Amino acid sequence: MSTSPPDSYRRNEHARRAILDAAIDTAIEVGYEKTSIEGIAKRARVGKQTIYRWWPSKGAVLLEALQQRMGRDGELADTGDLFADLRGELLRAAHLYGATPIGAVYHALLTASLSDAALAEAHDAMVRPGIDALRRRLEAAQELGHIRPDIDAATLVDMLYGTILFQVLLRTRPLAPGQVDESLRIILDGVRPRPTLEGGARPAASE
Amino acid sequence: MSTSPPDSYRRNEHARRAILDAAIDTAIEVGYEKTSIEGIAKRARVGKQTIYRWWPSKGAVLLEALQQRMGRDGELADTGDLFADLRGELLRAAHLYGATPIGAVYHALLTASLSDAALAEAHDAMVRPGIDALRRRLEAAQELGHIRPDIDAATLVDMLYGTILFQVLLRTRPLAPGQVDESLRIILDGVRPRPTLEGGARPAASE
Repeated sequence: MSTSPPDSYRRNEHARRAILDAAIDTAIEVGYEKTSIEGIAKRARVGKQTIYRWWPSKGAVLLEALQQRMGRDGELADTGDLFADLRGELLRAAHLYGATPIGAVYHALLTASLSDAALAEAHDAMVRPGIDALRRRLEAAQELGHIRPDIDAATLVDMLYGTILFQVLLRTRPLAPGQVDESLRIILDGVRPRPTLEGGARPAASE
Repeated sequence: MSTSPPDSYRRNEHARRAILDAAIDTAIEVGYEKTSIEGIAKRARVGKQTIYRWWPSKGAVLLEALQQRMGRDGELADTGDLFADLRGELLRAAHLYGATPIGAVYHALLTASLSDAALAEAHDAMVRPGIDALRRRLEAAQELGHIRPDIDAATLVDMLYGTILFQVLLRTRPLAPGQVDESLRIILDGVRPRPTLEGGARPAASE
């Protein structure tokens, strides 16, 4: 009989999902600090050792759980309209971070990772694909001549996400789309190709 | 005899300083979460009730202690060189946040304030003067015509501090001055007065 592997796989998958759901729901309810492996295990109806088999710490479980709920997979939209594509991504990030309970849990994890090297590495692995996707979208715009060639796309990523992070963190309320538009306009104005000295008209920066 | 009030004032001042020092030193040593009013009191050689007489929570004590160690009082430098003044302020903030143990304590407080309205209010009162001073420096540059009149100075503040915050948080290492320069250049290029359509030369954006 060869039914045992798939069955055990299904059982594992079921347990993993239950644990991830329990982790994030617990953290939303009681906060990151008061979330414990014991509490997660109880809620997911598994043993603590089942959790420790797959994750080394509550931070690691929560990172994976957050990733499932926050995750944008793959590339950023490329509609040919750079402003619109960036606007969509920043509003998505601002909403997730500032207007859902997930934001506070994520922020607590970010804090914890400041003093936990393993968690910092796991966090980096989690956010890296999104950061890289935004960078690639900016580099594509650069290749089309909509962003000056001397601009460092990685710095632009910091500016775009950083502005949102700061606004959400220090206001602790949902961002108005107008604020996103204003910062996007300033950044895109700052990176558009400069008119040549001879005054020859260059194409406008909007794609 | 009128010596009693000054003596008691001096005693209070001495106790306050001892408490603030004990609070920040404890938080740097054991982290924000493990810092307790009891631990602070022990270290400062005062009773817990002395602390509670002046502050409602450990977050409130730590905020004031951080303010004393982080604080830049009053206005931002105005040397007439906008780039240099902003660069100085951002490098100062990046160093404090990213290269001293105070940064992690501050970040934990920021996290705690996301779910604690009183702490959020106290935090806002602490950071507001610095944010306002940067905004006023930008508005002064705007009045001199170095920044377009339609730019919202408050958004610029978010972009400047946000970029630094993001870089420090997600890299957890000291910022290179080159990164600060690059983001400053992009932002200042984005806000400088636009050439008139008739091609009339405007003064360069550098002050």
